[in-house]
Amino acid sequence: MAQVTGTKRLIFDAALALAAERGISGTTMDDVAVRAGVAKGSLYYNFASKDKIFEGVLSEGMAALTEALRSARTGLHGWAAIEALVTTLLCRIAGNTALAKVMAGDIFRTDRAWQETSFAFRHQALAEFAAAIEEAVPTEAGAAGVTGLMASSVFGATLMAGLEWLIFEPDRPQPEVVAAVLATFSGRLNPTPGIR
Amino acid sequence: MAQVTGTKRLIFDAALALAAERGISGTTMDDVAVRAGVAKGSLYYNFASKDKIFEGVLSEGMAALTEALRSARTGLHGWAAIEALVTTLLCRIAGNTALAKVMAGDIFRTDRAWQETSFAFRHQALAEFAAAIEEAVPTEAGAAGVTGLMASSVFGATLMAGLEWLIFEPDRPQPEVVAAVLATFSGRLNPTPGIR
Repeated sequence: MAQVTGTKRLIFDAALALAAERGISGTTMDDVAVRAGVAKGSLYYNFASKDKIFEGVLSEGMAALTEALRSARTGLHGWAAIEALVTTLLCRIAGNTALAKVMAGDIFRTDRAWQETSFAFRHQALAEFAAAIEEAVPTEAGAAGVTGLMASSVFGATLMAGLEWLIFEPDRPQPEVVAAVLATFSGRLNPTPGIR
Repeated sequence: MAQVTGTKRLIFDAALALAAERGISGTTMDDVAVRAGVAKGSLYYNFASKDKIFEGVLSEGMAALTEALRSARTGLHGWAAIEALVTTLLCRIAGNTALAKVMAGDIFRTDRAWQETSFAFRHQALAEFAAAIEEAVPTEAGAAGVTGLMASSVFGATLMAGLEWLIFEPDRPQPEVVAAVLATFSGRLNPTPGIR
């Protein structure tokens, strides 16, 4: 996806900042124009509607995330790949908390005009986790077709812990958060791994 | 928390159903009155504002969830307690998917009138997970104060996998979903548990 620049960039950044504060539904085209410092004519010239802006913002964010995840796990296998994915996702959440908040709030909305686009991008990001998990877990997990659910679990755990950290405990050093999320999956919760 | 009944019950159920379809911000008092089959005068007699309705809906839901979690882990320890908590949370999500969707979308909003109430209830639900984790993990995790983040991870994993299941794969039997989420935490992702 080509980098969005110029007026479109100003509009994307303003829309994202507003949605992180008050939600997508609570953000109007007028708000976006004022925050971006862009005339209303110019705003509508670039985007026909608020839906088009947020479709763009979320698609751009998810595409960048997928690319970062893919590159992070390249050459790694098993637990090392999962570690790299969790670390990268936490890094991205810390680097753009507004985007993470808006995505977390939007991920299960089924009434959005951009729903199909959003589901497709979500699927691509989750597929990076699924690929690493498929390699790490015994074949019977793959056979039951539950790799996708395990990918959602790892993604959801990282997203929730990451937002918890940035919203409620922003002073905690990032490596502690990475370690805590990884500890959840490492097996230490289950001291008798025979019982699964 | 006393069971909400009568007109208030009709209003809560209508508000929740609408918010699951179109978000809290997209739901108006007029919509709620129509969906509940309640006159506007009666609606405002019971709740001064939309904020008051959703504060009530979310508080009731979180209180019931916390009670269910607490009762599920009573008498259990370690991994068995975590299994019971994950199973119970998935059960609640399946039993009231509308509530789970609205909670998932609202959990990191920082602009809500009911924010303090919502944070307090969220904290109570997470504390049930934290208590079980504290018992299950080696002391160094507790010492670093990361039990809360691990609780968020387990909660976030279960919430995301549960919504993924109910929205995208509703035909999958519940035991498979429980097994997939538990497999994520069981240690099978990390075949060499020495490397943590």
